[in-house]
Amino acid sequence: MEKKARVLIDCRDEKGLVYKISKVFYDRNLNIDNNREFVDQEIEKFFMRSEVSGMFEINELQDALKEVTPADARIRVIEPTPKKIIIMATKESHAIGDILIRYADGELDAQIECVISNHDTLEGLVRRFDIPFFHVPAEGLSREEHEKHVMALISEFEFDYIVLAKYMRILTAAFVETYEQKIINIHHSFLPAFIGANPYKQAYERGVKIIGATAHYVTNDLDEGPIIAQDVIPVSHRFEWRDMQRAGRDVEKIVLSRALALVLNDRVFVNGNKTVVF
Amino acid sequence: MEKKARVLIDCRDEKGLVYKISKVFYDRNLNIDNNREFVDQEIEKFFMRSEVSGMFEINELQDALKEVTPADARIRVIEPTPKKIIIMATKESHAIGDILIRYADGELDAQIECVISNHDTLEGLVRRFDIPFFHVPAEGLSREEHEKHVMALISEFEFDYIVLAKYMRILTAAFVETYEQKIINIHHSFLPAFIGANPYKQAYERGVKIIGATAHYVTNDLDEGPIIAQDVIPVSHRFEWRDMQRAGRDVEKIVLSRALALVLNDRVFVNGNKTVVF
Amino acid sequence: MEKKARVLIDCRDEKGLVYKISKVFYDRNLNIDNNREFVDQEIEKFFMRSEVSGMFEINELQDALKEVTPADARIRVIEPTPKKIIIMATKESHAIGDILIRYADGELDAQIECVISNHDTLEGLVRRFDIPFFHVPAEGLSREEHEKHVMALISEFEFDYIVLAKYMRILTAAFVETYEQKIINIHHSFLPAFIGANPYKQAYERGVKIIGATAHYVTNDLDEGPIIAQDVIPVSHRFEWRDMQRAGRDVEKIVLSRALALVLNDRVFVNGNKTVVF
Amino acid sequence: MEKKARVLIDCRDEKGLVYKISKVFYDRNLNIDNNREFVDQEIEKFFMRSEVSGMFEINELQDALKEVTPADARIRVIEPTPKKIIIMATKESHAIGDILIRYADGELDAQIECVISNHDTLEGLVRRFDIPFFHVPAEGLSREEHEKHVMALISEFEFDYIVLAKYMRILTAAFVETYEQKIINIHHSFLPAFIGANPYKQAYERGVKIIGATAHYVTNDLDEGPIIAQDVIPVSHRFEWRDMQRAGRDVEKIVLSRALALVLNDRVFVNGNKTVVF
Repeated sequence: MEKKARVLIDCRDEKGLVYKISKVFYDRNLNIDNNREFVDQEIEKFFMRSEVSGMFEINELQDALKEVTPADARIRVIEPTPKKIIIMATKESHAIGDILIRYADGELDAQIECVISNHDTLEGLVRRFDIPFFHVPAEGLSREEHEKHVMALISEFEFDYIVLAKYMRILTAAFVETYEQKIINIHHSFLPAFIGANPYKQAYERGVKIIGATAHYVTNDLDEGPIIAQDVIPVSHRFEWRDMQRAGRDVEKIVLSRALALVLNDRVFVNGNKTVVF
Repeated sequence: MEKKARVLIDCRDEKGLVYKISKVFYDRNLNIDNNREFVDQEIEKFFMRSEVSGMFEINELQDALKEVTPADARIRVIEPTPKKIIIMATKESHAIGDILIRYADGELDAQIECVISNHDTLEGLVRRFDIPFFHVPAEGLSREEHEKHVMALISEFEFDYIVLAKYMRILTAAFVETYEQKIINIHHSFLPAFIGANPYKQAYERGVKIIGATAHYVTNDLDEGPIIAQDVIPVSHRFEWRDMQRAGRDVEKIVLSRALALVLNDRVFVNGNKTVVF
Repeated sequence: MEKKARVLIDCRDEKGLVYKISKVFYDRNLNIDNNREFVDQEIEKFFMRSEVSGMFEINELQDALKEVTPADARIRVIEPTPKKIIIMATKESHAIGDILIRYADGELDAQIECVISNHDTLEGLVRRFDIPFFHVPAEGLSREEHEKHVMALISEFEFDYIVLAKYMRILTAAFVETYEQKIINIHHSFLPAFIGANPYKQAYERGVKIIGATAHYVTNDLDEGPIIAQDVIPVSHRFEWRDMQRAGRDVEKIVLSRALALVLNDRVFVNGNKTVVF
Repeated sequence: MEKKARVLIDCRDEKGLVYKISKVFYDRNLNIDNNREFVDQEIEKFFMRSEVSGMFEINELQDALKEVTPADARIRVIEPTPKKIIIMATKESHAIGDILIRYADGELDAQIECVISNHDTLEGLVRRFDIPFFHVPAEGLSREEHEKHVMALISEFEFDYIVLAKYMRILTAAFVETYEQKIINIHHSFLPAFIGANPYKQAYERGVKIIGATAHYVTNDLDEGPIIAQDVIPVSHRFEWRDMQRAGRDVEKIVLSRALALVLNDRVFVNGNKTVVF
């Protein structure tokens, strides 16, 4: 039976890769509906994402691609079915709200398994959408104890990604490593960037004329982790810090939703501390 | 001797094109330094731009590609040497000035053969850059008579593109057809678009909050022609129409220079009344 | 008792207006917390918006301002209480969804009285937020008959503004005149602008590189009506028209919400077919 | 004789300032062609910029304004004549080139007194515009010795502002203090911001999706100094650091020219480490 797949390949670059990979598709009489490649010349790494359709068997295709690519190749043949996601949030509703509206609309190419929060503020909103909400309070607990409860909860679900939709707690290295390349975050980041508590207040005090937001994978780098999407909006001296925060929320939610759509459509490769976005 | 080329192919889409084309490169032991394809699914048309390097002979490569592609294929194997351009302008200096500064800097990947204008306003500026300037007055002449003089002048030069850097006269169909797909123009276009005399005044009277500019190939379509690049800037009720014009100039010059760089690097395919920009 | 008000004045310009108006405030010992003026030099019209606080009586203040301003002056002294709004929508959820999330969050400075739709698609979503939803079908009815039902419904509510959040029916002149300067709409508008059915398909076929949206007051002008806010996003040849539509939705919802916030905060003056936005 | 002036006032906020100041204008029968105020509520500071026209004597007007404003008031009554500027640059031509084209066009509301550079690279370009160029080499000199030569040169000119158009040397505290609030700089700044050598390479290695630029007053703050204008452009994984630099140059030049126009029109107040831009 005719079917579709997204084929993602990344490996060290070598001569003939496009030829060898497209030969595998050609020999199986597959259509290439969409094809994008990129070579990071600096580190000689090859990235390719193809959307193919036709008669094929996933494992066979994967094995055939394995044979024609270098030993280090990561090959993923993915059927385009909705991913499963877990959302973590705290109190603010703009980022999670934007996802929920898209979800209710059928625009989000994902199944939301549950929402986990360290506060119960968002419980009402989430329940309006018939999605399980779990309140895991952090008061009186060490970071590790709190995360133990969260991880126990997460372990009850199958999922592809954890989306931090303004989850305001810092994650431990252990947590991040457990879900490597599976955690997406939205970060308020500015020109210049402000780290730490109340970045909008810092931005206000610095008198910036532009504020922005960054969606990224969460890693244990001191810095943020591979950036998926960024955007900005102009502000002026008439913006008090609360106005900046309000304006910033619009950018945050749009950038997170944009990044999430890219990730759910398997359009993002992690390349060290950078990304390749097709 | 090792050399580089840009290979541009467009033809009706069919199964195996990427495979067959990359096989031609592979068989000649060429490196693919950069590769981009796009299929316009609606009209089933295939576009590909590859930067290759290695030992090859241009005609032989072109013939080999001809053999593996459909009969309608347009195949261009282009050595990455600077293009030759002719600039046409009228009185305003912002668009041509931006090109001249890039030219003086060596940033522009082109040789400016000459500047042709229906006024002598820009003569001083152009001569500062040691570029031939020709004043071809239009007073008292029909459009056809004036263009006859311009075309006689153009015929003395070898060139790849004519850049209309705020050339304020409408071109005849005959002129446009003579230099098909060779004329690039910058158009002040807005939200909503304003056509005709003094578009900035129209935009002002309409009370728009954003103004923009469009760089495009010139065709004989009623409408503009295939769009290469567009950009916008915000304005407010505080902008009189001259302020809008001033702000618009910055967008116009940046958009034209951006489009020109794309065209000079052979990154733009014309696809009917649209473009594919790699 | 100390209170706050927004004072909005527009009238023909004449010498001394700022002096005379600020004298009224000064004589009553009011604080000016925020003050913005604008003179449209072309038509010699004066606009002023002041946020004042102190001990005052609204009618007395209004009368005092009347006395020092020209006969044509429109003077509004408005207490900063939440406005009442009616939302009209059709099937798409992005624009209304964005408003609902802000509403649930307490960010929207308004009370949503009800949602009226010519379809029942959005009923489930609206009811999640405990807001009355009225389905007023249009099938088999003339435009006038349908609007008669809608207006009967509207007449049961007190309201300040009607927000068309992707309401896809054209309103009659009679409807628009009934609620003059009270109807806000979001319009998909592009570079160049596309009017009529399926503008995203038209934009796709035109090959634009930017799409945008316009929030405006609804009038009976052939054209749109006074523009409140506009914004755009870049697109490319890789966007099919459905991708453009999806991208356009993000701009539409943000622009509508931005315009709505401006209107709810009494920051927008209508100035002929333009606006002054403070 | 009828004349025009820009009146700039900043002082601690107190009740009645708008009234008292506009009374001074009213008593002299002056027209207010444009008027903007802003109160920084956090530090209770008042800013006002008025464009007035009529029959007046500058000193008398200044004195009258002094009388009605708090003791700390800084009052400037400025005739709108072109300012005099000195440009300092190093090797790159994009920022200075953009200024020169505007200058040649008459768009720049300033007289360029001279260009000073620590290299002779730009001499040819500057001389094309008949502007004095001074090469002050820094080789073999301490920072202080080099600046001594520069300052000796500067002292020969009357000027209002020094524009650093990609001047790549760090200025000493002594230099900065000598020309307090008179030095404008363009800074490549990103999301997140990169300080130090080759910021574009740092941005590339961080994998940012947006790069930007900041125009600001130069101060001795560790950080940059009051920001006048900022802007950004999107980039992608396909940009090598030289592509980022090339794209960044377009933003740098536009942002510097925009900031310069604001400063030359007396539209910028320095407010601590921030600005108020009218």
